[in-house]
Amino acid sequence: MADTPHVVVLGAGFAGVGVAQKLRDAPVRLTIVDRNDYHTFQPLLYQVATDELEPTAVGSPIRDLLHRHDNVTFHKCSVDRVDLANKRVVVQGMPPIDYDYLVIALGSVVNFHGTPGAEQHAFPLYTMKDAMRLHDHILRTLETVDKDPLLVNDGALNFCVIGGGPTGTELAGALTELLHTELNADYPNLPIDQARVILYEHSPHLLAHFKPKLRDYAKQALEERGVEVHTGIGVMEVDASEIKLSNGEKIKTHTLVWAAGIGANPIADKLEVELVHGGRVPVGPDLQLPNFPGVFVVGDMASMTDAKTGQPLPGLGAVALQAGHHVGKSIAQLVAGKAATPFHYVDKGTMAQVGRGAAVVELPTGGTLTGHIAWLAWLGVHLSLLSSAEEKTSVFVDWGWNLLTHRRGKRILLSDDNTSTDNT
Amino acid sequence: MADTPHVVVLGAGFAGVGVAQKLRDAPVRLTIVDRNDYHTFQPLLYQVATDELEPTAVGSPIRDLLHRHDNVTFHKCSVDRVDLANKRVVVQGMPPIDYDYLVIALGSVVNFHGTPGAEQHAFPLYTMKDAMRLHDHILRTLETVDKDPLLVNDGALNFCVIGGGPTGTELAGALTELLHTELNADYPNLPIDQARVILYEHSPHLLAHFKPKLRDYAKQALEERGVEVHTGIGVMEVDASEIKLSNGEKIKTHTLVWAAGIGANPIADKLEVELVHGGRVPVGPDLQLPNFPGVFVVGDMASMTDAKTGQPLPGLGAVALQAGHHVGKSIAQLVAGKAATPFHYVDKGTMAQVGRGAAVVELPTGGTLTGHIAWLAWLGVHLSLLSSAEEKTSVFVDWGWNLLTHRRGKRILLSDDNTSTDNT
Repeated sequence: MADTPHVVVLGAGFAGVGVAQKLRDAPVRLTIVDRNDYHTFQPLLYQVATDELEPTAVGSPIRDLLHRHDNVTFHKCSVDRVDLANKRVVVQGMPPIDYDYLVIALGSVVNFHGTPGAEQHAFPLYTMKDAMRLHDHILRTLETVDKDPLLVNDGALNFCVIGGGPTGTELAGALTELLHTELNADYPNLPIDQARVILYEHSPHLLAHFKPKLRDYAKQALEERGVEVHTGIGVMEVDASEIKLSNGEKIKTHTLVWAAGIGANPIADKLEVELVHGGRVPVGPDLQLPNFPGVFVVGDMASMTDAKTGQPLPGLGAVALQAGHHVGKSIAQLVAGKAATPFHYVDKGTMAQVGRGAAVVELPTGGTLTGHIAWLAWLGVHLSLLSSAEEKTSVFVDWGWNLLTHRRGKRILLSDDNTSTDNT
Repeated sequence: MADTPHVVVLGAGFAGVGVAQKLRDAPVRLTIVDRNDYHTFQPLLYQVATDELEPTAVGSPIRDLLHRHDNVTFHKCSVDRVDLANKRVVVQGMPPIDYDYLVIALGSVVNFHGTPGAEQHAFPLYTMKDAMRLHDHILRTLETVDKDPLLVNDGALNFCVIGGGPTGTELAGALTELLHTELNADYPNLPIDQARVILYEHSPHLLAHFKPKLRDYAKQALEERGVEVHTGIGVMEVDASEIKLSNGEKIKTHTLVWAAGIGANPIADKLEVELVHGGRVPVGPDLQLPNFPGVFVVGDMASMTDAKTGQPLPGLGAVALQAGHHVGKSIAQLVAGKAATPFHYVDKGTMAQVGRGAAVVELPTGGTLTGHIAWLAWLGVHLSLLSSAEEKTSVFVDWGWNLLTHRRGKRILLSDDNTSTDNT
């Protein structure tokens, strides 16, 4: 075993799982490290926040994913730093891990762009914990207003979202649906008709990466569902019950969801490599770190450029999974004495869901879809992405079933029972 | 509406839900208060702790349970105290609530009997939060040992349980099953064969309320499954990595589950009524509080005596639900100008599960069942109890399905991702 090359993968997101899948039969020892014992299906976190899915439907146990891999060891621990000079990784709670090949795929972190009060009061939506925290905050807010309806005048039922990318857009659509369907029946005494969902985007358009036709459709579909959409407006300041906008206006709210940008992962900061836009690590066309052969950076953490088109690649789950597959294959090639190859992303379509039965899809052919057909395509692509990450069917069957039957989560506040011995 | 009698129910456990069910068509206004927005199916909390069920399978949204009740208002808030003299309840976060009829059904709290270190280090198993905390502690312990196998010598894989009642017995059986089936595959590097499950009971017998034949069967079934059973032994002291037993012995362990008794609810303490054994509130044969007509105390909080047999009634979900139904009917009678009637518990059998396919059942006829037949009876009774509390089928179908197919929860540590903005 000592002669078998040791591949260490940091992070079990789409990129890390992709690497593992392609190295399953390679003559290597593989060690995967993640601070969580689950893989997060990030594109659907907004559904956890809005009670469409339970956390366990979006988090798959990493040990389960690896049951059929004989050459893999998983460690649940946080990464402290990467020592590129000595080819080792310093982790918490166990000895450092030496590597022959390294894949750094730890994702980004949320970026508040220095906005005063945002870190304390806004609700990011990038990790499972973020989604669960937002979910519980929404239910807790409704319980509070139910007991004291005058809080409506303090903006307690104004739900604001900053960031009109896929996350913010999908969340705003799901939130308005949650408030005006299920919760309406749950809180008969609540003035739920006074609830507002307000989406801000500082640039002129929602879904900037989509074609104008799709942007317009998305905006219209959101507005039809009751979402107030404001483009060209940013958030300048946040406190517990009010936000200040870039146009000088102030809006009373107890909930500002922060879907406005990600920044450098602290591990990237410690790499002693000059980072580029958004705190990303620049990599070569084969996704290797320049000057460090055998070290790959993949996914949201990397500034990846398509080797064929020369275009920067977006931070999407589908891109990260394909890049992970590519790196897995490259490492197998390097182990076999061949060279790594440049990465080209095969676009299978970009899409966002605006509401149940309403989505926008940009096809790789250049065509577009909207409405129910787009929504079915959105469903299909996510189902196939889920099943690829899962290698098994139970979760995605559950998920498809929930979506199609409109069966929601249980709408209970598990984080609130915070006294284990006091039952009053 | 002002003339309609106002019934206030404190607590939405089996007793409180039982009251609401019987008052659905009565000419009253009903207000239910609970600190959680879910009803806990307490008899199965041990399955949440051992990853057989997810928390949402054992917690039903109270607002959902009440959708079909037109005369009910629910408030999620904690009760501060009951002002019997002025017929009002003081709660947190909203004005006091005046009542015409009151049902106090807030349950008990865990009782550590003053054992040094128990409150800090032991894991009770009475609330949902308790179960989730124990679940996460078990997984976290395995992750820690996986990274540092020498911790086995420090007792990290010794799982101790104190209390040989149904909770402790069922938990010990489920825990040994969890460790030696599912987790074995999850942690290939872990010396799981060195894991021990040790059950202590200070009295001479497990399951003291059962017939000797059933006690013996349960003990033998646990031992066949690898549980070490020690009766006549109590726990005198607890710290983070060791417990001291009543026989002077010390056992290294990082996990002591406390299933050894419940005590007075703080609200009972504040009632200015003399409490009896176990901190319970003494009630009359019709479950009313002596000297306070129209005020009922029901469930674990009350010291209830069977009006027919004169025997004290045990703290079981089935007893609480029946008592709740009785009180609901009594209040309807009082409102109609009739008298309340004494409560007699109709025993439909007492049972405990020792492991999959192994249970003990004491039939109301005096007969007993063990083994697979008993397990099916156990399953049937819980399914009917669940469906009665739920008034709908989804949860109990899920639950039966999980049990029969041996499909477990997702085995992930959601409480561990405790940094919302740091993704390292």
